Amino acid sequence: VPTWKLTVEYDGLEFCGWQIQPNGPTVQAALEEALQKLHSGDFIRATAAGRTDAGVHARGQVVSFSTARELVPNAYERGLNTLLPRSCAVRGVEHVSDDFDARRWSHGKRYVYRVLRSRFRSPLRERYTWMVHQKLDVEAIRQAASLLTGKLDFASFQGANCDAKTTIRHVKRLEVLEEEEELVFRVEGTAFLKHMVRNVVGTLVEVGIGSRSAESMRKLISARDRTQAGRTAPPQGLCLDEVFYDLAAGPPTREAVTDADD
Amino acid sequence: VPTWKLTVEYDGLEFCGWQIQPNGPTVQAALEEALQKLHSGDFIRATAAGRTDAGVHARGQVVSFSTARELVPNAYERGLNTLLPRSCAVRGVEHVSDDFDARRWSHGKRYVYRVLRSRFRSPLRERYTWMVHQKLDVEAIRQAASLLTGKLDFASFQGANCDAKTTIRHVKRLEVLEEEEELVFRVEGTAFLKHMVRNVVGTLVEVGIGSRSAESMRKLISARDRTQAGRTAPPQGLCLDEVFYDLAAGPPTREAVTDADD
Repeated sequence: VPTWKLTVEYDGLEFCGWQIQPNGPTVQAALEEALQKLHSGDFIRATAAGRTDAGVHARGQVVSFSTARELVPNAYERGLNTLLPRSCAVRGVEHVSDDFDARRWSHGKRYVYRVLRSRFRSPLRERYTWMVHQKLDVEAIRQAASLLTGKLDFASFQGANCDAKTTIRHVKRLEVLEEEEELVFRVEGTAFLKHMVRNVVGTLVEVGIGSRSAESMRKLISARDRTQAGRTAPPQGLCLDEVFYDLAAGPPTREAVTDADD
Repeated sequence: VPTWKLTVEYDGLEFCGWQIQPNGPTVQAALEEALQKLHSGDFIRATAAGRTDAGVHARGQVVSFSTARELVPNAYERGLNTLLPRSCAVRGVEHVSDDFDARRWSHGKRYVYRVLRSRFRSPLRERYTWMVHQKLDVEAIRQAASLLTGKLDFASFQGANCDAKTTIRHVKRLEVLEEEEELVFRVEGTAFLKHMVRNVVGTLVEVGIGSRSAESMRKLISARDRTQAGRTAPPQGLCLDEVFYDLAAGPPTREAVTDADD
């Protein structure tokens, strides 16, 4: 069946996450409704690369769907962006190979987390940042971040009810950038455990404040105990920035694929 | 009377502009209400450097007020940010000389206007950008912008009902920067006519689309006729970024001060 790849952007604060659920609007429900209207009432299942949580934004979420009732790409662009709520939009449409699946074909993802270093509220940024009023030691944060880079067991950073078969994940990059008042975390990996990025950021901010040392990251990794890591950073600072594919080569080897994602 | 200088940020889409008016919330009303609560019911007049229009944002609006009932700076910070609506916050508090006036003492301002070059809606940016789907010739825009820089008669770019005594204004800088999908206009000047920045951007975008030439800016300046300039760019792309002062020297010479501002 002909398959399509959509790049989707949304304001996470307007949704109860990606995945359909009974209590409140979800991105998946919004997209599937729009697709159904566009295809004369046929139900079409939408699959996302990452099942983002309530409040988490996406700039480059990737969604796949298959349909025999094929439209031209331009019809998807205009049609979907007219039917979707303002808080969600399609920003790219591609006709891909029939067996493409946004989730299984993902070779990796980049998340961006924004911390606002300020003791003053910022009305223009409060929807997209976590405000931290304490002074942060950026060098300590960078040292700690370097210890969380690589192929490691992230069990200590795994959210409750995470049903992943293994807690080993490959964090390829964890950059900490200063952009004026903001401290920006750019995290790239093949896959992530539920809440993993937010738990990593929450822990790194505690290193920045000085309530734990950079060096303590080693113990934390070997402890494999969620109660020893820091708080979960709030969702609105997080954005699924980009999902990586190799459309010519197809899906990655097993390693990169996981069951639960933040 | 002891006088205070506040740096204020707000989301312009939540207000009917700076200036108090009967039909809807204004930034001035929100601030004056918060100041009144903080000063046991005394009415306190708030004066802004720029009277921004409905929908126009501010990252660095400056507001002054005077009161005999003096609080410590920290009380203003916390008190005002607790009392103000979420869409408005104080981001700096300074005790200044008694004769300071945010409007009369301004030596200049910088506005930033963001155009989103895309045919796709962007939910994360629609509140802060003007979406233009046509392809824009950035070099032509830069040429035209250079012809709108300097001490010129901006009568053609003046909003309706603008009651300024003179239409000559000094635009010190008009930079056009490409930031990925965005085209960012940074405009610095001593003062601006009502709607001037939005009319300049609207006209420059028409140059970018090709519906008028860069060279035609010369004629437009000498025409002194609003009907010959381009459309007024929508308010949400505009942000009052910074207001410049020389607190040691005091207010500028007459030239910089004007009656109407965008």
